[in-house]
Amino acid sequence: MNLDFIQQQVKSADTKIVMLVLDGLGGLPSGPGGQTELEAAHTPNLDALAREGISGLHLPVGTGLTPGSGPGHLGLFGYDPIKYQVGRGVLAALGIEFDLRPGDVAARGNFCTLDDNGLVSDRRAGRISTERNEELCKLLETIKIEGVEVFIRTVKEHRFLFVLRGEGLSQELESTDPQALGVKPLDVVAKTKAAEKTARVVAEFVQKAGELLAGHHPANMLLLRGWAEKPNWPTFGEAFGLRACAIASYPMYRGVATLVGMDSLHAPTTLEDKFALVAEKWDDYDFFFIHKKDVDSRGEDGDFAAKVAAIENADQALPQLLKLKPDVILVTGDHSTPAQLREHSWHPVPVLLHAKYCRTDEVQTFGERACIRGALGPRFPGKELMPLMLANALRLAKFGA
Amino acid sequence: MNLDFIQQQVKSADTKIVMLVLDGLGGLPSGPGGQTELEAAHTPNLDALAREGISGLHLPVGTGLTPGSGPGHLGLFGYDPIKYQVGRGVLAALGIEFDLRPGDVAARGNFCTLDDNGLVSDRRAGRISTERNEELCKLLETIKIEGVEVFIRTVKEHRFLFVLRGEGLSQELESTDPQALGVKPLDVVAKTKAAEKTARVVAEFVQKAGELLAGHHPANMLLLRGWAEKPNWPTFGEAFGLRACAIASYPMYRGVATLVGMDSLHAPTTLEDKFALVAEKWDDYDFFFIHKKDVDSRGEDGDFAAKVAAIENADQALPQLLKLKPDVILVTGDHSTPAQLREHSWHPVPVLLHAKYCRTDEVQTFGERACIRGALGPRFPGKELMPLMLANALRLAKFGA
Repeated sequence: MNLDFIQQQVKSADTKIVMLVLDGLGGLPSGPGGQTELEAAHTPNLDALAREGISGLHLPVGTGLTPGSGPGHLGLFGYDPIKYQVGRGVLAALGIEFDLRPGDVAARGNFCTLDDNGLVSDRRAGRISTERNEELCKLLETIKIEGVEVFIRTVKEHRFLFVLRGEGLSQELESTDPQALGVKPLDVVAKTKAAEKTARVVAEFVQKAGELLAGHHPANMLLLRGWAEKPNWPTFGEAFGLRACAIASYPMYRGVATLVGMDSLHAPTTLEDKFALVAEKWDDYDFFFIHKKDVDSRGEDGDFAAKVAAIENADQALPQLLKLKPDVILVTGDHSTPAQLREHSWHPVPVLLHAKYCRTDEVQTFGERACIRGALGPRFPGKELMPLMLANALRLAKFGA
Repeated sequence: MNLDFIQQQVKSADTKIVMLVLDGLGGLPSGPGGQTELEAAHTPNLDALAREGISGLHLPVGTGLTPGSGPGHLGLFGYDPIKYQVGRGVLAALGIEFDLRPGDVAARGNFCTLDDNGLVSDRRAGRISTERNEELCKLLETIKIEGVEVFIRTVKEHRFLFVLRGEGLSQELESTDPQALGVKPLDVVAKTKAAEKTARVVAEFVQKAGELLAGHHPANMLLLRGWAEKPNWPTFGEAFGLRACAIASYPMYRGVATLVGMDSLHAPTTLEDKFALVAEKWDDYDFFFIHKKDVDSRGEDGDFAAKVAAIENADQALPQLLKLKPDVILVTGDHSTPAQLREHSWHPVPVLLHAKYCRTDEVQTFGERACIRGALGPRFPGKELMPLMLANALRLAKFGA
């Protein structure tokens, strides 16, 4: 089921859909015979939604695959993450909310250290401070190249974003990062004939950058990789016929939402304040993507109890959202982040959907094990949550006569 | 999710994976209200693995499809059996462990009977004895054809393997078997221009064979079909980054394993001895495919009690394997072989996976009905068991940033 097909089935309705993403929601038992973070959490409001709604576990990308934040959210937004792959340069732009435009070419940049022979001795320039990075980016922005605009933006420590804007640019370049020490940075090489102009421009930039940075050891050179253009995908609004907004405070999630054409609202940090913003904008949008980051962060900290608390915090805030009486509410995560693993994982993610006509199943509590027996099953394709929500919002027309 | 995609995600880890295949494991209740073979079997060790691990039923090929041994195992090895089809000539070669090489063209041969008018009167030559077959194959191997090597190998009764080795051969030939009586064997016909040389070679062979066999009624002619070359697939090692070995005593399973590039170890017959061999080779490989045939054989005999006993035998041997503490152990079958049906069937196959981070479900015993409620669900795609095992062995990298 692809976006073109869904788009043909979309019809309009006066219904509201809310997708609440508790980042990294899925977990693992704390030990043999134990409970997961979500199972251990006291979540009377989520349990009530699960009791009245339908539940299951969704696979964000596919069996065994651990999603990054980009693919994880694209899947939730209905874009097959394997088909709709985002280049790393674009992800870097999203991560700092750089306004990438069609035709722009972006790359991830590293400051690095060259030794006296011009060989890379540190691919991360001793992880210089973010402040130092900002000074060097200002220096690099003085470089002028005819026919193109160059943007250099600090990301963090040794990392920056490099963007070219102009006519006839191409992402088909090789990386200049040798991914090894004791060798020279690689030349800028075009993969296709159409990318030769871009390669010349970048080569000129790299040469001038080398001259400017020469005296700034340990950050006396730069490496560029992950060349990518802003993808030309159907927008979320086109695909699903929804006026959609994102209420997220972290740049990466705001970035992915704007990449598919959602409005990204200036979002406060707490969930209570985010729900208040939803109330304020209730008439302006049909679809609200609300993102809560700390569930994932506590998982990455390896702090089981704090992840439980972050989930309980979401549960306590929930009645405020429910007062708005959304026609469809879906609660899930973009991936699992078990405290035991301290990182994203491949495990399917608990999901619940609550709507008037959802055909309630027998799940009584919201948790990994309980969800296995839900109406959505233990391996629901994440990219199909969007059509499921649309149907429950009475926004999909009959297929065929 | 295809092999190329998985290959990109593979990362290395110091973990061991064991796949124990109880051939034909799935079954049917002995009668209304009864238990299946696996449910009836006393399997405390498998039940303990199911209790601590995750379970489900896998679909080897697809809904309603009954797998042959080749496709059944290819699916377990992560090769979509619908995409990765093996020609029958190649299957014949695998079945007798003939060392088929790239560029070889193989066919299934039958000795047949021609009447005085040269018309086929028995497509199986009265099912001559295997001993007689061996004598005739020796006779046929005396045929020399310029520019190619010809190999003739006995399979069983009237069946043999025909292999051509040489430059520029092609599998694009029509069968010479008319699949009917009272007609002549078909001429050797090339389906493509590139196969014309091969057709000429085969026609010359068939003519000489007819002369040699003329006095050997009822086996006074031969028929050739199922032309196939050794496929050029990604190897198991390339696709999954694993040093893999097969521990199987039947030629067909050894053959399928070597077809995908596993090392086939000289395997003893009993499961105890196979497990001892695993222990011996524990440091040399990352992935161990262990095959037990008799569960299927007793199903094909229609002997419910004997199939139960074969399963119990596997269960009793299991602790010996578990002592090695594999990071991931998976137990399943390549298809179902219900004693009631006396043949392979389309029913999903019970599967359990045990690993440190598998996120235990609530399944307490290993059996068809219990597995329905497992974390893998009642219809897990068989070809995705490999990525699932890799993930649980911490051998798949994050997808996207």
